[in-house]
Amino acid sequence: VYPLSAFAASHPNLVIDAADVDAMQGAIKVPGRFRNAFLSTQSSVDAGLQQPFIVPVPADAGGGYTHEQHKKNYQLMYNAGVLFQITQDPKYAERVRDMLLAYADLYPTLPLHPKRRPDADNPGKLFWQSLNEAVWLVYTIQAYDLIRPALNDEEAEKIEQGALRPVVKFLSVDSPATFNKVHNHGTWLTAGVGMAGYVLDEPEWVEQALLDLDKSGKGGFLRQLNTLFSPDGYYNEGPYYQRYALMPFVTFAKAIENNEPERGIFEYRDGIVMKAIDTTIQLSYNGLFFPLNDAIKSKGIDTSELVLGVTIAHGESANPQLLDIAAQQNQILLTGDGLAVAQALDAGKQEPYQFKSTAFRDGKDGDEGALVVMRQQANGDQALVFKPAAQGLGHGHFDKLSWQFYDRGAEIVTDYGAARFLNVEAKNGGRYLPENETWAKQTIAHNTVVLDETSHFDNNLQFANQHYPTLKFFHADDQVKISAAEIDSAYPGVTLIRTLALVNSPENQSSYAIDLFEVTSGKIHQIDLPVHYSGQLVDTNFALRGFTDGISALGKNNGYQHLWLKAAAKPSAGLAQITWLNDNGRFYTQSSLVDGDTQLLFTELGANDPDFNLRSEKSFIARREHSQTHTFVSVLEPHGEYNPAKEFTLGAASDIQGLSHKQVGEIELVAIENKNGSTQLLAFNRSASASSESKNQFEFRGNRYAFSGRAKLFQITN
Amino acid sequence: VYPLSAFAASHPNLVIDAADVDAMQGAIKVPGRFRNAFLSTQSSVDAGLQQPFIVPVPADAGGGYTHEQHKKNYQLMYNAGVLFQITQDPKYAERVRDMLLAYADLYPTLPLHPKRRPDADNPGKLFWQSLNEAVWLVYTIQAYDLIRPALNDEEAEKIEQGALRPVVKFLSVDSPATFNKVHNHGTWLTAGVGMAGYVLDEPEWVEQALLDLDKSGKGGFLRQLNTLFSPDGYYNEGPYYQRYALMPFVTFAKAIENNEPERGIFEYRDGIVMKAIDTTIQLSYNGLFFPLNDAIKSKGIDTSELVLGVTIAHGESANPQLLDIAAQQNQILLTGDGLAVAQALDAGKQEPYQFKSTAFRDGKDGDEGALVVMRQQANGDQALVFKPAAQGLGHGHFDKLSWQFYDRGAEIVTDYGAARFLNVEAKNGGRYLPENETWAKQTIAHNTVVLDETSHFDNNLQFANQHYPTLKFFHADDQVKISAAEIDSAYPGVTLIRTLALVNSPENQSSYAIDLFEVTSGKIHQIDLPVHYSGQLVDTNFALRGFTDGISALGKNNGYQHLWLKAAAKPSAGLAQITWLNDNGRFYTQSSLVDGDTQLLFTELGANDPDFNLRSEKSFIARREHSQTHTFVSVLEPHGEYNPAKEFTLGAASDIQGLSHKQVGEIELVAIENKNGSTQLLAFNRSASASSESKNQFEFRGNRYAFSGRAKLFQITN
Ligand SMILES: [Zn+2]
Ligand SMILES: [Zn+2]
Repeated sequence: VYPLSAFAASHPNLVIDAADVDAMQGAIKVPGRFRNAFLSTQSSVDAGLQQPFIVPVPADAGGGYTHEQHKKNYQLMYNAGVLFQITQDPKYAERVRDMLLAYADLYPTLPLHPKRRPDADNPGKLFWQSLNEAVWLVYTIQAYDLIRPALNDEEAEKIEQGALRPVVKFLSVDSPATFNKVHNHGTWLTAGVGMAGYVLDEPEWVEQALLDLDKSGKGGFLRQLNTLFSPDGYYNEGPYYQRYALMPFVTFAKAIENNEPERGIFEYRDGIVMKAIDTTIQLSYNGLFFPLNDAIKSKGIDTSELVLGVTIAHGESANPQLLDIAAQQNQILLTGDGLAVAQALDAGKQEPYQFKSTAFRDGKDGDEGALVVMRQQANGDQALVFKPAAQGLGHGHFDKLSWQFYDRGAEIVTDYGAARFLNVEAKNGGRYLPENETWAKQTIAHNTVVLDETSHFDNNLQFANQHYPTLKFFHADDQVKISAAEIDSAYPGVTLIRTLALVNSPENQSSYAIDLFEVTSGKIHQIDLPVHYSGQLVDTNFALRGFTDGISALGKNNGYQHLWLKAAAKPSAGLAQITWLNDNGRFYTQSSLVDGDTQLLFTELGANDPDFNLRSEKSFIARREHSQTHTFVSVLEPHGEYNPAKEFTLGAASDIQGLSHKQVGEIELVAIENKNGSTQLLAFNRSASASSESKNQFEFRGNRYAFSGRAKLFQITN
Repeated sequence: VYPLSAFAASHPNLVIDAADVDAMQGAIKVPGRFRNAFLSTQSSVDAGLQQPFIVPVPADAGGGYTHEQHKKNYQLMYNAGVLFQITQDPKYAERVRDMLLAYADLYPTLPLHPKRRPDADNPGKLFWQSLNEAVWLVYTIQAYDLIRPALNDEEAEKIEQGALRPVVKFLSVDSPATFNKVHNHGTWLTAGVGMAGYVLDEPEWVEQALLDLDKSGKGGFLRQLNTLFSPDGYYNEGPYYQRYALMPFVTFAKAIENNEPERGIFEYRDGIVMKAIDTTIQLSYNGLFFPLNDAIKSKGIDTSELVLGVTIAHGESANPQLLDIAAQQNQILLTGDGLAVAQALDAGKQEPYQFKSTAFRDGKDGDEGALVVMRQQANGDQALVFKPAAQGLGHGHFDKLSWQFYDRGAEIVTDYGAARFLNVEAKNGGRYLPENETWAKQTIAHNTVVLDETSHFDNNLQFANQHYPTLKFFHADDQVKISAAEIDSAYPGVTLIRTLALVNSPENQSSYAIDLFEVTSGKIHQIDLPVHYSGQLVDTNFALRGFTDGISALGKNNGYQHLWLKAAAKPSAGLAQITWLNDNGRFYTQSSLVDGDTQLLFTELGANDPDFNLRSEKSFIARREHSQTHTFVSVLEPHGEYNPAKEFTLGAASDIQGLSHKQVGEIELVAIENKNGSTQLLAFNRSASASSESKNQFEFRGNRYAFSGRAKLFQITN
């Protein structure tokens, strides 16, 4: 027989401790955000308590009835537990007790879940996969901790022996592969088991959770902290999964801090937990996460995981900029940290959160490429996302060196994100759709180079996970943000180097995203560079005529089979310009240098999609046939305004009349000639080793220019 | 020589009078909305005054440089005139004076505009068409009225003789066809000339403006008020043109009221000006006008014309509901009425504006059909628009008996609106696109029946303008809004009768849009009934497989050439269900009764669109071949919620498992069987002559039921 967990005095002590409870009991008597949040939770829990509870025998997969019911159950138990502590009303503790007793009856009878995937290595019992079972434990152990003082020993013993200990055992010693796995599933399992260790007074479980079942440090929570985040707090599956992974990290970290402050968990690895929270915020635009890898686009900073992250981070740092995010989240947690956020917001202490231009290094040692975010204010809030990052495991996309562009609140140059309708049964049971593999992950679905209609790494995930781009440089000053990266493993014998810059010229009120993409190969290839754009095509400066009576799929495989070819053109040498109008009311012109041998293919997504699973999105593809080496040079220019509500249209035409690019030694020059005769000249040093002290000089149109450091934007007026 | 206009004492007296000026002078000293609006206008006009002014020789058509410059000029003159009155600062009057003197130099030299349309009957001189010239006069005569006190007689004489009188002459006696035309162009001309009559003390001009050049009453402003609006204040071109037409109506009416209150212009024709303003508001959803006929979709209640309309209407009525609209418009005019709105809003006097279910009769005598709006609150704000209205002249669409549906802020069953990018030069000079004729006006672009791939009235506008549907009935109670209409002239020898109902059942939290469309003909036809929907196709309850490698245009003419056929199915007899997911996060299922002989064609817009002028919108078309008579029976059901941000999906599947329709005598029954076994039974009396006292009874599943009046929704639980 195991010992019963300790005295009432030591409960609760996970995310919420006794001092938090005292403070919350006082705060609910005072008008303000915290009291409002309390009343709202109380009203919803009280409504739940009107209904009898149901602990069904597990039958359904994700999204199905029993799955959702068990999710509702742990959420209700957690909230009722919190309300018990705040109000001391026994009805809340009784409901949690009764539900836990029902779980204690049920759990020992359960085989593996009937809907587990065939040959799955991570089945659950209550749920189809052990991940969900671990989430159940994370919530339920907190609920138990919160109501433990209201239980007699007999009840506690039944619940611990019938439900909690068996779940812990099932998720730890009976699931060693998943428990020890350095992966977010592992984080949930170790967090649940470790927190149970604190509550049930089993220090061994805590040790195992932190250090692997064998306490070697090869797996476990600390290893996950060492490995799953880069030194800059970037999670290599991207922000969509980062915010998801965040939940068990911050929850368990907070529980560790409360129980064993001497571990200094928030200082661990130079404050990696805090960095991970902040980076998650940084990887958003207009409240939504950048849709990198398998991301569903509507996820953003108001997700429950980041509410918890911001709340706990504010509790640790009292950083007033986090309050700006908390204000946008508009959701106050019933915890001690939540109370501090509520009181600080009530007192108007928030300060504007600063989104920064940053290269977030990828890889546990920070040397596996980077995710680069460039931002500027230029008649609106602009962000350029450049992705020379690592693959990002199974949810990663074959999108090396891809980019996205955002302006005035909208996606302009887009990434499809994931092909999935979350929990919509009719759409492949709510799971990832087949088109996630055949389209969303493929290279052609991204704004990067595709050779020979074949995706990067030839879609070989294992190979992809072992290779990554090199960040050549990143630089940001007021006028110029610029970064370059290189990869030679995406295609055998081919080197891809991309330089992206986001610049602004206050003198002529313009801003540009400048793109140089060098492809170097020893063999002949077909080279495609797509731009997926959001908006209505408005104009091209070359003859373009859409196909009229019939259209066909552009290709056969690797995503090309999903593109309807709607038009094709081969502009003559010079400047090729394509203008579209976004729903944000601004025009965007892509101007590119062509030599007469570049085709432009205009496509719409939706071919070979018999189940209507794909959204109808648009792109144009610059295609070079029979090329060994080619540099794509292009500039994206936001301009003008379309305002039919107020009946005016301004600047619908591009202001660019010429574009040139040349390289002299290590200096590259991109000259953008405006219609007013002025020239915006971007000069940069392409050498990875250039420093901020480097002195550079060059000649342009017969004049000599100099700059120091990485790059400079010259405005030349004639 | 003409007499000079009267003494300073009588200026200004058009929309703004001396009492208004007094009040505004006081109000700008007090913090509040009015002072803010004043400061904002002052700051923008002061910035304008920093620049030299330009009165260019007319050269460009709509959207071009000289066109836009002359527009800016009259706006600046008007605003500077208002600021002169409020501040008495001579700099404002001097700028207006100098610009008017420049116009007085220029205007006499001008031939007809070089960019007038060949063989146009309405050319302008400053602008390519006389309409714009009249708008110039409406603004400019007000500016002149406002600064007249600052002019000496010599200046006034030069301006009047050189610019104002020649423009009046050009727009009246030299443009008799347009001036006398009962059409919104005529309203602008008569408003400009009539207001000039007040300012220049030419009562004859006022008489001509009110009663036709020959004062017969066959044309002129009063005739326009008699004819252009229905007795319910509906303007037969639809709300997009209604708000545009509103501007000269309310401006001139206000000027008449200030100068000749004895005319009782706001009481004229039972208060038609006020009704027209209110109806314009009613014809909106979520701030945007219903996109009937040639409408650009982003126009809504915040347009400048309706700001003026609401401001003047509030000045007349002091109706606090208008303040709710004014608050949404968030734009305070610098007039006496604008001041009253600002002060009332500052005092928090607004009351929620009531949107009503109404049949707005069409035609000057109210007997040319109707535009029917049904609204209800059912888990969100719903509106069903049914259009048995008249053609609506040249901007009308061939869309008899069409409908639209709105829910939770979004378009669900849509109308394309106009094919136009307003003022975007690259898109056909910013004018209506060719696709406005070939797609947007065609019947297949609407949610109504098309026979033999031919549009209503065979696209004959003249014939269409002479024929209209008959409104059979309209009824609205808490649970049931229902209306039916009939037309037998859309196709020769064919009678179309449509009944649309919007119902809600509080017991089971459901709401439905019910559609019965009867087609009766003596000959064999192909009958198509499209539903243009907004969202992503989620599910069908019949086998459906999209074409994979190639798609073709559905037809050759009358809009069919623009539809890509993406999939086709012929569901077996019973219930055919199609579910889509709107961006508002709600699911919508169209359930229809089929007998095994109805094809369902799934289309996407964009074929035969070489210039990429059309938006990619989606529809499904129910098609009956070789039919003389057919009744389409269908129900649109909003359900569930898709919330990927919060990671839940509820009610993604339809709750309908059966549908039946029968008619016994004058009683029609539509029974909707829910999956929980209950039945929602809509019973209505189809006779046009049924009254609210009619007693109806019927038998259903062996039981007898009775109801009085038009219709009743029975909930039957077994
Ligand atoms: Zn992607
Ligand atoms: Zn239409």
